[in-house]
Amino acid sequence: MTKQFVVISAHVGDFVWRCGGAIALHTQNGYRGTIVCLSYGEMGESARLFADPEMTAAKARAIRRQEAQAAAEALGADIVFLDGTDYMLRVTEQMLMTTAEILRQTQPEFILTHPAADPSNLDHVTAHNFALEARMVAQAHGRPGGPVIGAPQVYSFEPHQSELCGFKPDTLLEITSVWETKRKAMECLAGQKSLWDYYENVGLQRGAVARRRQKQVAGSRVYAEAFQKIFPSAVEFLG
Amino acid sequence: MTKQFVVISAHVGDFVWRCGGAIALHTQNGYRGTIVCLSYGEMGESARLFADPEMTAAKARAIRRQEAQAAAEALGADIVFLDGTDYMLRVTEQMLMTTAEILRQTQPEFILTHPAADPSNLDHVTAHNFALEARMVAQAHGRPGGPVIGAPQVYSFEPHQSELCGFKPDTLLEITSVWETKRKAMECLAGQKSLWDYYENVGLQRGAVARRRQKQVAGSRVYAEAFQKIFPSAVEFLG
Amino acid sequence: MTKQFVVISAHVGDFVWRCGGAIALHTQNGYRGTIVCLSYGEMGESARLFADPEMTAAKARAIRRQEAQAAAEALGADIVFLDGTDYMLRVTEQMLMTTAEILRQTQPEFILTHPAADPSNLDHVTAHNFALEARMVAQAHGRPGGPVIGAPQVYSFEPHQSELCGFKPDTLLEITSVWETKRKAMECLAGQKSLWDYYENVGLQRGAVARRRQKQVAGSRVYAEAFQKIFPSAVEFLG
Amino acid sequence: MTKQFVVISAHVGDFVWRCGGAIALHTQNGYRGTIVCLSYGEMGESARLFADPEMTAAKARAIRRQEAQAAAEALGADIVFLDGTDYMLRVTEQMLMTTAEILRQTQPEFILTHPAADPSNLDHVTAHNFALEARMVAQAHGRPGGPVIGAPQVYSFEPHQSELCGFKPDTLLEITSVWETKRKAMECLAGQKSLWDYYENVGLQRGAVARRRQKQVAGSRVYAEAFQKIFPSAVEFLG
Amino acid sequence: MTKQFVVISAHVGDFVWRCGGAIALHTQNGYRGTIVCLSYGEMGESARLFADPEMTAAKARAIRRQEAQAAAEALGADIVFLDGTDYMLRVTEQMLMTTAEILRQTQPEFILTHPAADPSNLDHVTAHNFALEARMVAQAHGRPGGPVIGAPQVYSFEPHQSELCGFKPDTLLEITSVWETKRKAMECLAGQKSLWDYYENVGLQRGAVARRRQKQVAGSRVYAEAFQKIFPSAVEFLG
Amino acid sequence: MTKQFVVISAHVGDFVWRCGGAIALHTQNGYRGTIVCLSYGEMGESARLFADPEMTAAKARAIRRQEAQAAAEALGADIVFLDGTDYMLRVTEQMLMTTAEILRQTQPEFILTHPAADPSNLDHVTAHNFALEARMVAQAHGRPGGPVIGAPQVYSFEPHQSELCGFKPDTLLEITSVWETKRKAMECLAGQKSLWDYYENVGLQRGAVARRRQKQVAGSRVYAEAFQKIFPSAVEFLG
Repeated sequence: MTKQFVVISAHVGDFVWRCGGAIALHTQNGYRGTIVCLSYGEMGESARLFADPEMTAAKARAIRRQEAQAAAEALGADIVFLDGTDYMLRVTEQMLMTTAEILRQTQPEFILTHPAADPSNLDHVTAHNFALEARMVAQAHGRPGGPVIGAPQVYSFEPHQSELCGFKPDTLLEITSVWETKRKAMECLAGQKSLWDYYENVGLQRGAVARRRQKQVAGSRVYAEAFQKIFPSAVEFLG
Repeated sequence: MTKQFVVISAHVGDFVWRCGGAIALHTQNGYRGTIVCLSYGEMGESARLFADPEMTAAKARAIRRQEAQAAAEALGADIVFLDGTDYMLRVTEQMLMTTAEILRQTQPEFILTHPAADPSNLDHVTAHNFALEARMVAQAHGRPGGPVIGAPQVYSFEPHQSELCGFKPDTLLEITSVWETKRKAMECLAGQKSLWDYYENVGLQRGAVARRRQKQVAGSRVYAEAFQKIFPSAVEFLG
Repeated sequence: MTKQFVVISAHVGDFVWRCGGAIALHTQNGYRGTIVCLSYGEMGESARLFADPEMTAAKARAIRRQEAQAAAEALGADIVFLDGTDYMLRVTEQMLMTTAEILRQTQPEFILTHPAADPSNLDHVTAHNFALEARMVAQAHGRPGGPVIGAPQVYSFEPHQSELCGFKPDTLLEITSVWETKRKAMECLAGQKSLWDYYENVGLQRGAVARRRQKQVAGSRVYAEAFQKIFPSAVEFLG
Repeated sequence: MTKQFVVISAHVGDFVWRCGGAIALHTQNGYRGTIVCLSYGEMGESARLFADPEMTAAKARAIRRQEAQAAAEALGADIVFLDGTDYMLRVTEQMLMTTAEILRQTQPEFILTHPAADPSNLDHVTAHNFALEARMVAQAHGRPGGPVIGAPQVYSFEPHQSELCGFKPDTLLEITSVWETKRKAMECLAGQKSLWDYYENVGLQRGAVARRRQKQVAGSRVYAEAFQKIFPSAVEFLG
Repeated sequence: MTKQFVVISAHVGDFVWRCGGAIALHTQNGYRGTIVCLSYGEMGESARLFADPEMTAAKARAIRRQEAQAAAEALGADIVFLDGTDYMLRVTEQMLMTTAEILRQTQPEFILTHPAADPSNLDHVTAHNFALEARMVAQAHGRPGGPVIGAPQVYSFEPHQSELCGFKPDTLLEITSVWETKRKAMECLAGQKSLWDYYENVGLQRGAVARRRQKQVAGSRVYAEAFQKIFPSAVEFLG
Repeated sequence: MTKQFVVISAHVGDFVWRCGGAIALHTQNGYRGTIVCLSYGEMGESARLFADPEMTAAKARAIRRQEAQAAAEALGADIVFLDGTDYMLRVTEQMLMTTAEILRQTQPEFILTHPAADPSNLDHVTAHNFALEARMVAQAHGRPGGPVIGAPQVYSFEPHQSELCGFKPDTLLEITSVWETKRKAMECLAGQKSLWDYYENVGLQRGAVARRRQKQVAGSRVYAEAFQKIFPSAVEFLG
């Protein structure tokens, strides 16, 4: 049976910047990933598009959707659009049920989503709560849509300003082997070009810490992504 | 090369109640463990011994040392006594250097010790800081005693009152396979008989949570110990 | 005038496992308790019922309601069902007004409910906020339904995983004298048999700490429940 | 261009007690302030009005509105009423869009609102989240209503019980020069006379700390208000 | 048997401003209080004394000691001076043993001391840790000086800047009945005259909250002191 | 009168990586800075030096001292060496008195030092506490060494792993205008070449956030350093 995982992302960009490496790494190692994208980020992430005076929200949505599709393909994962509007994102019961059904069908090993707090972007908070709600609904008996799920780990991925969001990484995932793939996926997001180098830097900074923890040779170029577990994990050994 | 680990314990009882299962599990799976025992706990852990009106601190130390030796043997680990006095435990530069040397010689995969806070038992706080100091000294260049160590993970083990100590477990280690060994080690501590069942209960409570996380059959009797990582860990996969 | 208290519980099981002892203790000492039960927990707490392939959500609701009624009777308290659906629990303005009216009519000495956070069960978070909202509505002037209430203390009761929920108990209530009653109430919940012993253990663990604080004889079998105050309390003496 | 600021206040009283000094100080120094008042506080802040048996909610609203208008005038700021009902305050999409438009039109230097938590008054939490949401909507491209705003600082003002609300002041604003104005504004709120001296005391207590930080002569009568920044601020010098 | 309590105070002023009301209230109700005063505060609390150019540290100590003695008498408690020097306070093993002996002899119902953190005054942190250490030493078997103590509650009293010190009051003690006594004790500290009114205000502010919690008539003049429990307390009833 | 500031740094590298920009910026704008360097970091920061098999601790100290001197000159500040040994750093009463005297002589506008926590490097914690102690001693009356100081702000500068150290930046200082100077100072530390680019990246990441807060043109290359205030600051205006 193929191991699966699910990503729940408020906007298009989030799944690329914050866990694109994790998606690529796991898919290249035999996992199957499904990205649930709650909105297209056409309001909050598209300043560059709106520099064009002809731009409209509808056009921006279409462009962003294409970019997201391309990025997901580059990473090797399926993507499902739930068609929400961002800034402010409002989720519906329908979106929740669809996501719970995806969780039941995929029986994921783990779920990736936003941290619990982000005062600069409440859409992220909405997505976090939505992910935990969908997990609960997928655990509930007496509903259609396949067998209930167990208790998969939920990881918060790294927000834009970690300390502002109370994000305290406890898990560093080395993504050096898939770095080129992540970079390619980032470059699918033409509307946010200014962030490509920014997030390359983030990858290097996290990599510098991961390298030391893994006793790798100083000087090598290592990339990593940072995550925070929501639940305790059950392990077989401590080291 | 044998994988090794080091336990830094304020009193005799601590390494048994709080991580005896982890010690037994790893030693039965080929790791070699070294317990650094800072004091004998003759003041703070020996109420039952002092019920004997003939008891003296010196006698209590001797009895506790024997019990600790027996418990360490039952668990399969080496034990080093640093001869401190408890309630209040005061550590010396000599104790620190000895421990740093042990870390250099063993090059441990991980270190187990007390959490950072415990208002009801400041000896535990002293041991926590001592463990972090010894790790630093063992990382420093320009000192004798073998090659420097890398950056081994430090796990806090579970204190008596977890919430009072700000202990938030992120790692549950199933110890069902070595439960009988841990129980036997606990029973070496004749002076603290009242705690045997208490810590058996703790094992079952943590096991109930671990079981769910590992999708085990409800109803089976599962034991676990809870730990909290101090540093982020670098992993190869998320699940 | 009879002293009263109100319990606000997300699911049927919660008021039994988490504060059944407090309910029994106070009712046996002349208080009158009212349990507001927001849902029947037929989705999230009824895995055992759904092992029966004939089971439906409607049947599960009916069974759970009966069990809850029996448990409330065993504990000696009134119970009011607000007929919500769990996993995910959604509360309505009507449910809020009904609860506020109960608060006005009972003028409770204290309110018991869930802690503010629980990432594994957002229904509990919903119930917590609902309880604080109902308290506010009952404090507001210019509404029908009896005189406004003062500022009754709200206690959080113990969640399933205390550290995960940021639960830090500040109040231990000894319930040894009513333990048999609590056990009987737990046994009314036939669908959750696996939890009976689990919560007996919780009672003993909390009792072990309470015993020491009350200078009771070691060895005696003491049960307690743990609570956390939301507001500061005004006292006449400190000890 | 006139520098502007916006205050988002759950009830009438809040903008007076908690940041009346800041409003007066900035308006007397050339800023223009706009107060967005979400409700009239006729339910939760008007116990004194309801001592009159003829009082109704509608009458209380009218009185409170007049008082608020007078207080805003005393402070020198504009006030916009969004006509919500308090205890419990429910905000609407319409209220949100109106506020976002005000933010776009005023392009404020900073925003003042309630802290993120207040277990005794969830209306304050609602107002806090509402303020952050309005800020986001005003930052979103592709919407009518003027140019998007930048990233203005948001300050939490002081709640009634600071420690209960996790309020940790990092900014003390001396308001001695406008104290008489603030006192006059407070006295516009005839229905809450009991709070006038209370908040004069708060001003003096905060002033005592601010005085020491500013090296002022001990003994002088200094008033201050306390604030907590939500976001980091970019500065030119550190002192 | 007379109920007893012990206060551990870094400087002379602390026991007066922070818990003078609690001392007076309990002594006037039959408790016996012992104040352990670690230093005279001649360095950090005596700016006014040093306005006299003839002042020396030795003279300041003598004056402060007299003032402290007078204040303790006014409050009705014994006072023991441990003769430390403040700013920076350094505690010795001898001071610790003396205090542990006092705890054994008095077998206190509760202990009052400083909170765990205070970045503006590390002497307070030293006193907090010292109090917890003395409690541990007094709990240890095998030492001379009387029977071991149980597990008395430790209350932190209110620091100068509560939020800066992470002080979150959970217990409000009304001290209206002994207010005149506390004021008189404050006035014994002639060198800190500027603080008398400041701490009268603190008493009124805390009183305003306590009054509401105790359903007292609005408008009455109520004084209170605020405390935070370090350990959970075992209670017989919740309200 | 020249405005002054003081930096208290555990090791040589710290004042360069963590606040070299702040030092250069203020000195180039007329402030005078004094760096108090507690140790040379010859144990913990000099892995590269010890790659030379002839290296000794004494040689490493001498090299590091020279590097530090050069870096301080590049930044334009005075530097005082207190000659401590690192890993583990132990501070003495003499070091404390010397630092307090420097504070009295310079009467600094602000102090820069390490954050309160760093589990990976307790020398930083020692330096933080040392800075707060020196500030207290410099505030104490009755001591020689010049007039007492007021209550200067203390800023924590950014540690290596911000989230691990509980560092939450509230102040971003743009250092673009002095970036070349900081880079030059970093390059004085030849033994830590691997960190030059790492800290250039940190500067850019913090700059990206600061830029947005200051409404600067996207795309420009902005550098910043991040700080956290320990005490509330008294301000004249909020924005």
